[in-house]
Amino acid sequence: MTEGTARMDWARDARTGLPEAVYAEGKTVAQLIAILSEAAAQDRPLLLTRLATSRLADLPPDLRANLDHDALSQTAIFGTPPQPAAAGVTVVCAGLADMPVVGEAVRTLAFSGVRAQVVTDVGVAGLWRLLERLDELRAARIIIAVAGMEGALFSVLAGLVSAPIIAVPTSVGHGVATGGHVALNSALASCAPGLVTVNIDNGFGAAQSALRILHAGR
Amino acid sequence: MTEGTARMDWARDARTGLPEAVYAEGKTVAQLIAILSEAAAQDRPLLLTRLATSRLADLPPDLRANLDHDALSQTAIFGTPPQPAAAGVTVVCAGLADMPVVGEAVRTLAFSGVRAQVVTDVGVAGLWRLLERLDELRAARIIIAVAGMEGALFSVLAGLVSAPIIAVPTSVGHGVATGGHVALNSALASCAPGLVTVNIDNGFGAAQSALRILHAGR
Amino acid sequence: MTEGTARMDWARDARTGLPEAVYAEGKTVAQLIAILSEAAAQDRPLLLTRLATSRLADLPPDLRANLDHDALSQTAIFGTPPQPAAAGVTVVCAGLADMPVVGEAVRTLAFSGVRAQVVTDVGVAGLWRLLERLDELRAARIIIAVAGMEGALFSVLAGLVSAPIIAVPTSVGHGVATGGHVALNSALASCAPGLVTVNIDNGFGAAQSALRILHAGR
Amino acid sequence: MTEGTARMDWARDARTGLPEAVYAEGKTVAQLIAILSEAAAQDRPLLLTRLATSRLADLPPDLRANLDHDALSQTAIFGTPPQPAAAGVTVVCAGLADMPVVGEAVRTLAFSGVRAQVVTDVGVAGLWRLLERLDELRAARIIIAVAGMEGALFSVLAGLVSAPIIAVPTSVGHGVATGGHVALNSALASCAPGLVTVNIDNGFGAAQSALRILHAGR
Amino acid sequence: MTEGTARMDWARDARTGLPEAVYAEGKTVAQLIAILSEAAAQDRPLLLTRLATSRLADLPPDLRANLDHDALSQTAIFGTPPQPAAAGVTVVCAGLADMPVVGEAVRTLAFSGVRAQVVTDVGVAGLWRLLERLDELRAARIIIAVAGMEGALFSVLAGLVSAPIIAVPTSVGHGVATGGHVALNSALASCAPGLVTVNIDNGFGAAQSALRILHAGR
Amino acid sequence: MTEGTARMDWARDARTGLPEAVYAEGKTVAQLIAILSEAAAQDRPLLLTRLATSRLADLPPDLRANLDHDALSQTAIFGTPPQPAAAGVTVVCAGLADMPVVGEAVRTLAFSGVRAQVVTDVGVAGLWRLLERLDELRAARIIIAVAGMEGALFSVLAGLVSAPIIAVPTSVGHGVATGGHVALNSALASCAPGLVTVNIDNGFGAAQSALRILHAGR
Amino acid sequence: MTEGTARMDWARDARTGLPEAVYAEGKTVAQLIAILSEAAAQDRPLLLTRLATSRLADLPPDLRANLDHDALSQTAIFGTPPQPAAAGVTVVCAGLADMPVVGEAVRTLAFSGVRAQVVTDVGVAGLWRLLERLDELRAARIIIAVAGMEGALFSVLAGLVSAPIIAVPTSVGHGVATGGHVALNSALASCAPGLVTVNIDNGFGAAQSALRILHAGR
Amino acid sequence: MTEGTARMDWARDARTGLPEAVYAEGKTVAQLIAILSEAAAQDRPLLLTRLATSRLADLPPDLRANLDHDALSQTAIFGTPPQPAAAGVTVVCAGLADMPVVGEAVRTLAFSGVRAQVVTDVGVAGLWRLLERLDELRAARIIIAVAGMEGALFSVLAGLVSAPIIAVPTSVGHGVATGGHVALNSALASCAPGLVTVNIDNGFGAAQSALRILHAGR
Repeated sequence: MTEGTARMDWARDARTGLPEAVYAEGKTVAQLIAILSEAAAQDRPLLLTRLATSRLADLPPDLRANLDHDALSQTAIFGTPPQPAAAGVTVVCAGLADMPVVGEAVRTLAFSGVRAQVVTDVGVAGLWRLLERLDELRAARIIIAVAGMEGALFSVLAGLVSAPIIAVPTSVGHGVATGGHVALNSALASCAPGLVTVNIDNGFGAAQSALRILHAGR
Repeated sequence: MTEGTARMDWARDARTGLPEAVYAEGKTVAQLIAILSEAAAQDRPLLLTRLATSRLADLPPDLRANLDHDALSQTAIFGTPPQPAAAGVTVVCAGLADMPVVGEAVRTLAFSGVRAQVVTDVGVAGLWRLLERLDELRAARIIIAVAGMEGALFSVLAGLVSAPIIAVPTSVGHGVATGGHVALNSALASCAPGLVTVNIDNGFGAAQSALRILHAGR
Repeated sequence: MTEGTARMDWARDARTGLPEAVYAEGKTVAQLIAILSEAAAQDRPLLLTRLATSRLADLPPDLRANLDHDALSQTAIFGTPPQPAAAGVTVVCAGLADMPVVGEAVRTLAFSGVRAQVVTDVGVAGLWRLLERLDELRAARIIIAVAGMEGALFSVLAGLVSAPIIAVPTSVGHGVATGGHVALNSALASCAPGLVTVNIDNGFGAAQSALRILHAGR
Repeated sequence: MTEGTARMDWARDARTGLPEAVYAEGKTVAQLIAILSEAAAQDRPLLLTRLATSRLADLPPDLRANLDHDALSQTAIFGTPPQPAAAGVTVVCAGLADMPVVGEAVRTLAFSGVRAQVVTDVGVAGLWRLLERLDELRAARIIIAVAGMEGALFSVLAGLVSAPIIAVPTSVGHGVATGGHVALNSALASCAPGLVTVNIDNGFGAAQSALRILHAGR
Repeated sequence: MTEGTARMDWARDARTGLPEAVYAEGKTVAQLIAILSEAAAQDRPLLLTRLATSRLADLPPDLRANLDHDALSQTAIFGTPPQPAAAGVTVVCAGLADMPVVGEAVRTLAFSGVRAQVVTDVGVAGLWRLLERLDELRAARIIIAVAGMEGALFSVLAGLVSAPIIAVPTSVGHGVATGGHVALNSALASCAPGLVTVNIDNGFGAAQSALRILHAGR
Repeated sequence: MTEGTARMDWARDARTGLPEAVYAEGKTVAQLIAILSEAAAQDRPLLLTRLATSRLADLPPDLRANLDHDALSQTAIFGTPPQPAAAGVTVVCAGLADMPVVGEAVRTLAFSGVRAQVVTDVGVAGLWRLLERLDELRAARIIIAVAGMEGALFSVLAGLVSAPIIAVPTSVGHGVATGGHVALNSALASCAPGLVTVNIDNGFGAAQSALRILHAGR
Repeated sequence: MTEGTARMDWARDARTGLPEAVYAEGKTVAQLIAILSEAAAQDRPLLLTRLATSRLADLPPDLRANLDHDALSQTAIFGTPPQPAAAGVTVVCAGLADMPVVGEAVRTLAFSGVRAQVVTDVGVAGLWRLLERLDELRAARIIIAVAGMEGALFSVLAGLVSAPIIAVPTSVGHGVATGGHVALNSALASCAPGLVTVNIDNGFGAAQSALRILHAGR
Repeated sequence: MTEGTARMDWARDARTGLPEAVYAEGKTVAQLIAILSEAAAQDRPLLLTRLATSRLADLPPDLRANLDHDALSQTAIFGTPPQPAAAGVTVVCAGLADMPVVGEAVRTLAFSGVRAQVVTDVGVAGLWRLLERLDELRAARIIIAVAGMEGALFSVLAGLVSAPIIAVPTSVGHGVATGGHVALNSALASCAPGLVTVNIDNGFGAAQSALRILHAGR
């Protein structure tokens, strides 16, 4: 069997304001090489997510040389994206174990030219940590909130600020929280008004949504 | 046992830009009367959601007289909200059975002074119905997409427009789709970029989120 | 078929410090009458839970006359329990729809001679409501926290006070929160230390657990 | 314990029109060797599915020499099947990560003498990719549609063509889509008429079903 | 709120070979009346499914007069469909409680001009009941198999005949089988080759799929 | 649509040693009448389960006159079964709410000529209740254990006696125990050796299994 | 932390007729050594289940020398159990991948002195395989039926024979059948009378139950 | 991406009476080193849970030297905690495989200066094991009960003693019990009064809760 040919959606940017990106998990090496080669041939920058560090060695040196890979977030930027500038997006997380997902969001924003501010480790078990950063959070234009376990951060935050809040539940947790479904359901069932959510661990999707909101405000 | 006293969050508007609202299901008649009386005393308009038509008869005539109740969406507006003006929000739905949820979103927006445009019955089984409305949809500043069953509308729409899209999965469906979880999961697992979602049948929450985005754009 | 004979566990009090109680749901009228008659014959007070108001009419007048039934909590006290005195138990709830469960806990405590303090409607979507009651809550010896939907109250509270906290998730909520599983899982997955939980809507069980803790402190 | 003896269903072809095949996962090496030896002795071609490349080394060289193993689809054909001819079956997939399942379907069809046409990477997030292949798809006699994540492809496709469509949901996806249940449920709950589905990742079963339909048309 | 306007997909027949149909559950009376009126105005026959007998009284007499409603299957045919002729479709069911779903399939086929043969009460607990009808079943061109509980009929049948088999799991069953998920999963996980399935209780969908297969064979 | 004709499995007794029985739920009145008439014509006794008291009025007087209906267990015996004799089967239950399921088992045994001993209300929360009946239980040849909620009775009992134990989990319980899945899973996951289980609330099935064991011992 | 001391239940045999056995998974090497040493000191034979072959090397040579380990079933017999004799137990399985579970049952029976007959690979997709062994199966005193995937074997078999049938669902299967829950639910929801079941892959428990039935027949 | 900076909640002790602790799983080596360094700099003892033995080698020797790591419970104590004294807490477990969770509880208590008594291997399949330790258990001030599989120990124990009982369900078990959900649900659905529970395998949380109860009794 041939491994198939990707049909890159280079026009997505024009249509939706969001650049084409590649979800690397589940793609074969041959498929990734074909995609990167096409991007190189067309001189387009490309974002890759879920690209495990261990797979870098499988790529030919010339392609690898143009990849800026970040081990924490398992993202790679191929080619040269726009220079990021601050745009009012703040990414908040409940605990340190959420940082890979924070990273995926931050890198996705950066790839589209948006520099995010990061506020870490403000889980509600120690509420003072969140409250002492409240001025910063109230100043944000858009907030991406990242939390696992029971995801109580989402509701507390949404009751305190007026910006759009995009919840990213993470798979951080054990027992009933394994896989991130508890945090996801907490975001969905929140008693706080106007909270929206994306899939578990989907920092990429949250960033894409923030970009849509930024475009809407222009 | 006393039935408890509500602590209305009248300051929510100042804090989050969203007015206090009342989820009527599960509240006793005595509790509802106390809440409406407080709103009347303070001369504040109030939105009530999930207020079954059958419960109206339990309210005293003077309170009922100030309630604008809508049977389809099971919402009621108490007092006089601001005059709605168009603000670029479009509410789209896949089928006629989704209309109560559409109604909850539209009425929530109206209560905050935003008049929405409604596009109905554009489910993807007849794709032409969606494509013939595409110009309208591309012109929207924010889209609320409402769909039950398998929720394929969310992905198709998100791939076609650049506005922020808030998915509202509905409990319309049978067999595996009973309760709306299939449509919810389709929104969360969507291959289309930058889609966010709220709880099943939560037209209210989607509207609140749209209001946050409108505020962010100011 | 005969409907069977109850074996009342009158010795439970001596063994576990907790009086025998009767869960009325699912029992036939004949079974309830037999149980109440035995309690009357032995001159023992008895607590009944989940006794729907509509079932009272099925009981003979002489038994009904000795029943103190509370419609909100669907509990009934048969005979004369001890006079309640304050013992440091505070029952907190997130919203008014949680009041039936609050009531079940309060009445169960009262049946064992403990008068509880009640703090209502302090859900975290308006965090100030909780924070303005903080001194009261910090003074409590034991806290029973009652919340539905996403149950964020449990974590926030457990991070703020040092008393034992027993979470009672409630079935208040819709969509993914239907049935109370989201609030239950939030209690179990909480990032706050030392929170314990009971079954959904189980105000009775939470009160029984508080009684065990009170006994342990003697 | 002996590992048991396979009872090959060589008469299946006569009974159902479908040749016997072997699901290799979970079978021991000794069991596989016995099966292949029996096929060799009876001079019958045999299809093996879910045969990991890593297991090939465990087989004796003479058996391995007659195995045509395909690494992408993890299928092997033992002996010489009929020469495939085109019969109007088209296999469509949403993304490149679905190609192993596409491969399983294509190889199963080939083993029964049917050559399939393959259309790859037409996921609905970029609807134009599907629409530009529409003529080809409308010309197909039978369509096997392969998609993971939210599986929106199934509904869109079923609304556009008149051929029988067999959905094969795949386990491609993360978060709520882990394991393929979201795509499966989307196929089952589809608002489009006349869509049928098979188990997750079951390219083999979809091909078998297509063969039944081809036979019915004769 | 207006209740919205249906966009009938009258072109579906040309596009997919399947006539437009209306799922009545969840539609308001006003919506149903509007749809029927449009069908009357355009002189098109229309199939309605899930139309409870109790709702007939809500329709105006002139529309009701043109409705051929079947109480068992909760289907109605509006106007005059083609005269049905035999086409080789056999609908088989495991037990009498499955008959409403059998009826939905049979009526849907009839609406498209196909007369089905029905074989009832051949559940595998008494295998002889199935085996004594085997000749009939082997003569069928397409089989729709309807079963609830554990759905063992699907596998047994698929191992015995060569026709395409469409499984329709039903919600008949109790305990773990409540809702029909066990029968559905049995169809999906079947060890028999080439079985496909539709949603629980979806006799309509199975019939639509059979029509696609009949068209493919022309 | 015709409602279909039952194919009674009168030969089941010869084949499996168990008489044919009728699960009444989901069958129409016409179907029940046809079945009873056939039994009357052939002069065969018949057991009906899940026959709601409210449905009796729908049956013609002559058939109803031969029905011995038991309201607690919702079972009916048509015609004259054998005279029951004691055979060593004991049916044990944890609480009074389990009595309908106990009744279904006892009546099913009686229909096949076996008189069971019943031990009620021996739930493990008051362990002494079980221990004081231990001699009786150890003397039983076969035990059917009926329990809802957490089903701890199954494990405790299986560790104390040597007879075959058939667990019947019941749907008695609330919150996480709604529907009986917790008791079912406790039976399946039991640490006690040699416990078997049947579906939730399936007193009929447990009795049938006990009859098989009795036959095996002959 | 000390790893704890096992309290062997050597009296279980007297109490329940079933010898003490050890579930090795999850126990540390030190715990296993202590248990085997105690058995050696008391000169008692002991059955160990779920003892991975890879763990044998961790045991001291003198203990290992007395272990009869079977790689297929992952069972080990320590010391000398009674000589097995035939007692009418037949273990049937649907496919070769079920053989490890068959082995666990056979070895557990052997440890208690019962030699079982084994019938393999009689899955219902090729019904003739089962039917040609029917005489053997009808002669069995007790049947243990082992099947994964959709578990249709259980219902078919239970409708054909009169012996007690203990279903052992296995985790053989993929997609929706992953983990064995579909086969388990098929056993529980079976339309065939008098079928009982044990936990997934629990060959040990099925054998223990068969031993209880054999004792009951004495 | 930087890996983020922990905000240690050193004031937690003053606020909740419980010292800050670190859940090591999911934290990077750099994050752990930063946390330990801060603890060292501030001369505070620190408890780490879920710290796999294999990760110790990644820590610098000077930090590792101050870590008292326990392999069974995967806990580490950094620095010098208070000398533990007996305080009436008893930790009971059903089987040896539960010992790692017992260990997590015991070590957490020790870190806060409480020495626990441990009672192992008293699962209810051999009830005498529990009953012979009953005097000890009745003397306990607080009981932490640890059990996997079906968790029947919780109910039996709660019916026998008057102390507060905190259930810790464990992930010990297979088939339906995989992951510990059956034991968890048994604790929640228990028919015994006043039982509370924590998350699966959460020995740490149970110990924290016991500390809250001890404080409440002072």
